[in-house]
Amino acid sequence: MNHDPQNTQQRSSLPIGIFDSGVGGLTVYRALHNRLPNERFIYLGDTARVPYGTKSLATVERYAIENSSFLASRGIKLLVVACNTASALALPKIRESIGIDVVGVIGPGARKAVALTKSQAAPKIAVIATEATVSSGAYADSIRAASSGAEILQTACPLFVPLAEENWIEEPETRSIASRYLEEVKRFGPQVLVLGCTHYPILRKIIQETVGDDVILIDSGEATAEEVEKLLEDKGLGNREQITYNRERRLCDDLDHFYVTDAADRFARVAERFLGASPTRLEAIEVYGSDGLET
Amino acid sequence: MNHDPQNTQQRSSLPIGIFDSGVGGLTVYRALHNRLPNERFIYLGDTARVPYGTKSLATVERYAIENSSFLASRGIKLLVVACNTASALALPKIRESIGIDVVGVIGPGARKAVALTKSQAAPKIAVIATEATVSSGAYADSIRAASSGAEILQTACPLFVPLAEENWIEEPETRSIASRYLEEVKRFGPQVLVLGCTHYPILRKIIQETVGDDVILIDSGEATAEEVEKLLEDKGLGNREQITYNRERRLCDDLDHFYVTDAADRFARVAERFLGASPTRLEAIEVYGSDGLET
Repeated sequence: MNHDPQNTQQRSSLPIGIFDSGVGGLTVYRALHNRLPNERFIYLGDTARVPYGTKSLATVERYAIENSSFLASRGIKLLVVACNTASALALPKIRESIGIDVVGVIGPGARKAVALTKSQAAPKIAVIATEATVSSGAYADSIRAASSGAEILQTACPLFVPLAEENWIEEPETRSIASRYLEEVKRFGPQVLVLGCTHYPILRKIIQETVGDDVILIDSGEATAEEVEKLLEDKGLGNREQITYNRERRLCDDLDHFYVTDAADRFARVAERFLGASPTRLEAIEVYGSDGLET
Repeated sequence: MNHDPQNTQQRSSLPIGIFDSGVGGLTVYRALHNRLPNERFIYLGDTARVPYGTKSLATVERYAIENSSFLASRGIKLLVVACNTASALALPKIRESIGIDVVGVIGPGARKAVALTKSQAAPKIAVIATEATVSSGAYADSIRAASSGAEILQTACPLFVPLAEENWIEEPETRSIASRYLEEVKRFGPQVLVLGCTHYPILRKIIQETVGDDVILIDSGEATAEEVEKLLEDKGLGNREQITYNRERRLCDDLDHFYVTDAADRFARVAERFLGASPTRLEAIEVYGSDGLET
């Protein structure tokens, strides 16, 4: 990283890039926005190729690098990979391919889980995530890297994503499905439960009620926002202009720029459900050329 | 189409191509295989880009043409577009781009619904499908083209696809979700209900029990297989070699060839759930080059 003061000052005024496979990363955007109201954000939702959770390593890596390069070309000071699957599978390749700091959502969620269970005699951490994230073992690896002693349980909850996108956040069917998925977690009896998929905070209320109030839920997006705040401070990269001067900062206002690779209208609709606001600046960008099949 | 007898004979020995956005089209493959055991099939599941149901017209058209060109390049006598979304949005473009007969799943499903309600004083046809298929109005258009008198109700059932892929075919949650989604259909009181998404036949039992035995369910895949059989007869394109000579024909045996654009292991797993067999010949094909983002 460049430590030339003038260059650092120039870089500090750049926005923070965020990419996700689709709409789920909006919960990470919300967490970043709430914690860092004096920063601008550029969000890319790869809605033409969502979901990543059922795709292979090679494909997720390729998509992640393309998304990262797009955001880097727009001028950003830091990249947040809001997609758990891409964070689990593609962080090393993304870091190789772009010359800026990259923060994923898995490391921060794992470290926060460890910090919150450190004082326990028998720390127990549960993680719920997509099938791809669970199979990757990325959360378990990150937790073990931060604390060798914790007992870990990971469970996939595939129906939570479509339920969140349907906005079935109070429905009895969602409660019943949550009971099934979280039965093993309840038996395990963890002190903390990591919401290891960006969609899951949308179902936070039902998840909390299902596992009980004794279990602390960790939103990986919020943990990520805390680490991003610290990183900006350490590197002197916090924005020095007062962008909120004389105006109120709101989610999805014109200081933030949203791109999607497809179906902008659907994205705006789901953003409204997730955030209570839809983007002021939203652009569908062209995916071009042939990603065609080998013939 | 070419009517030169020698050419027709050569073409008749070619396989039938089938493409779908992913695994759902396997129900269409099953219907074709059951009705036409003396034909070979090549199936392409575009698992790298599934699902199509939430994507835009331009994107679905582009994907559909790439898939069709791939299958055409392998040598097929007929193309079945097993994906309802692609059938709803992209049939005209596919027909323009390849010089062989193309059959979608929507027309056959709609025509069968009309045929089965023709004798009714007040024909009523209900269609359940993905959001994209419902919004396209393709089923309603096809039904009206075949019968101006029918009353039509269309409903989207977005959670049915993930429930089918989870294989939750007997679960009480699925029953409860089906009751909610199909409440309007029940009030409407149709004589027939078209299963307008290739995943829905997997949930056929619960759907039938929810709407009651008086309602005839139409599997668009089965209706498509009937039309394909007739088309082959009309054009003299039925396979004349006896491929089942001296052997039993089974679903997914080595006479049929399956391609996926990603995650072959997951495809094989879901095929096992849907068909009770997984493909003998299954190849993951490369998606290459940059379908990248415009930078």
